[in-house]
Amino acid sequence: MASRRADGPLAVVAMGGHAFMQKGERGTIQEHERNADGVAAVLMALVEREYRLIITHGNGPQVGSLLTQQELAGDEVQPMPLDVLVAMTEGSLGYILQQALLNRLRHHDPPRRVVATVTQVVVDPADPAFDDPTKPIGPFLQRDAAEAKVRDLGWEIREERERGWRRVVPSPLPLEILQHQMIADAAREGHIVIAGGGGGIPVMQEADGRFVGVEGVVDKDLTAAVLASTVGASLLIILTAVPNVYRNFGTAEEEPLRALTLEELERLADEDHFPPGSMGPKVEAVIRFLREGGARALVTDARSLPDALEGRAGTHVVGRI
Amino acid sequence: MASRRADGPLAVVAMGGHAFMQKGERGTIQEHERNADGVAAVLMALVEREYRLIITHGNGPQVGSLLTQQELAGDEVQPMPLDVLVAMTEGSLGYILQQALLNRLRHHDPPRRVVATVTQVVVDPADPAFDDPTKPIGPFLQRDAAEAKVRDLGWEIREERERGWRRVVPSPLPLEILQHQMIADAAREGHIVIAGGGGGIPVMQEADGRFVGVEGVVDKDLTAAVLASTVGASLLIILTAVPNVYRNFGTAEEEPLRALTLEELERLADEDHFPPGSMGPKVEAVIRFLREGGARALVTDARSLPDALEGRAGTHVVGRI
Repeated sequence: MASRRADGPLAVVAMGGHAFMQKGERGTIQEHERNADGVAAVLMALVEREYRLIITHGNGPQVGSLLTQQELAGDEVQPMPLDVLVAMTEGSLGYILQQALLNRLRHHDPPRRVVATVTQVVVDPADPAFDDPTKPIGPFLQRDAAEAKVRDLGWEIREERERGWRRVVPSPLPLEILQHQMIADAAREGHIVIAGGGGGIPVMQEADGRFVGVEGVVDKDLTAAVLASTVGASLLIILTAVPNVYRNFGTAEEEPLRALTLEELERLADEDHFPPGSMGPKVEAVIRFLREGGARALVTDARSLPDALEGRAGTHVVGRI
Repeated sequence: MASRRADGPLAVVAMGGHAFMQKGERGTIQEHERNADGVAAVLMALVEREYRLIITHGNGPQVGSLLTQQELAGDEVQPMPLDVLVAMTEGSLGYILQQALLNRLRHHDPPRRVVATVTQVVVDPADPAFDDPTKPIGPFLQRDAAEAKVRDLGWEIREERERGWRRVVPSPLPLEILQHQMIADAAREGHIVIAGGGGGIPVMQEADGRFVGVEGVVDKDLTAAVLASTVGASLLIILTAVPNVYRNFGTAEEEPLRALTLEELERLADEDHFPPGSMGPKVEAVIRFLREGGARALVTDARSLPDALEGRAGTHVVGRI
């Protein structure tokens, strides 16, 4: 096939679940499509700059819905393990985002196409996360039902105050994205590639080399960082719910960070400025990418992205030139 | 990325739902994985011949399971339309097949990787299938429940003798595979590409050029034929439940077809040798591919594939040299 290579730099964009479902929404298809269109509109600022793009997205609410459906239909339909459910959301959310992007791109010249890939991410069987599952997933259960799952299925469960019991799964670190070569090739050809949705489908390698699925969840921002390093992206953009990374977040001294070096960010991280459950993993992803040789990273919200690309908003972190 | 192009000819392989779920099975993940491994083992006969491969697969039972789950969990989780469910199965089955293939390929030299793509297939809003929905999907319903769906959701329903009422959806013809270029590029690089699962996610273009999802099902064999023509494959393989296409199928004069020309196959099709619900669409797919310039097509079952590649089994149809 004759195909023209796009000329712009390569960027990896990671976006949270807000790309599909906002707070207070019920998660209808109309809401998913409207939100995806909103994100696609904002990403056009990168397309206009001729960036080649790889997009990673979250899937928390959608995996939760699938787990609830499996629970309620358990007498009639065989439940699938978590790795397969992550794969399902790579299909469904990949499609919804793909369509939203195609529709925003339809008058774009030269034409650009979009492809979502089913992405496996390799994790280490010796990852300490397997000894300490921390990531809550799926519906809240009554104590009896939760204990039956522990007994019958070997789940780990945890009580959340006043809301009931919930399954917890490990969140191991991503080591390698198995489809990185196809992802990089397609992105270099100028196609917009959606990859590593939900952080990727976690798999581990057994002693004989066979890959097996893992019932766990990989952090999507860390997956985006590994992918960005592997494919040689020059820019990692993490879209989150707030316009900046903050020093002293949530205190009277809270202060948005505008631009800083990798070294400055590492020092602030060591001083615990970034809460583990929210901004922590995003900062960790930025640090990981820049340490591996990435040139620039940006953390901001979707609304601020166009201004951030002009250097007037967001938190910019600089690495190697 | 440096990557070596594979040298062999390009083949598109379409396989039915039996690749994941056999008759009498409950559809557990273990069954899915075992069946996928069996198909992957057979496909190694093509890999050993250095074929570049694109694989299309069915998804009937799996979409049925998702519809049943949605029905039973309807009070708690927003149901998704059929196009999104097809996308989910492209994720889940793509992943399961991808993993099975990777595991069979792990000692292969040179290394080959596998990628499943979320594939949209364009259909014509004026396709006559929309006036006559014929494809039954999802669970059997009681009459009252079925009529409520007609009233509330605009479903078309049909009664199946003694089993209850069932939703029927249109099965329009595939016109174009939106991701064909990325699929062809990855296959030419030597990666095994899984694409158009479940026949692809049907979408149509509105007057303003926007793509919208279609609640319908595209025949996977026809999608495979369109894909094979578009990417310039030299071989289309349709794996089905029986080792051959038969003349006078199901009668005392039943006779397996060994090798025939496109013209001979067209004549037999005109004489109604191939039942519409089963072998008909597969023969139609073969005819469509060879008319568009394809060189060869093969219809057989997975078990017979290795022998068929030696010319000792299956039904071979020849087109242009």
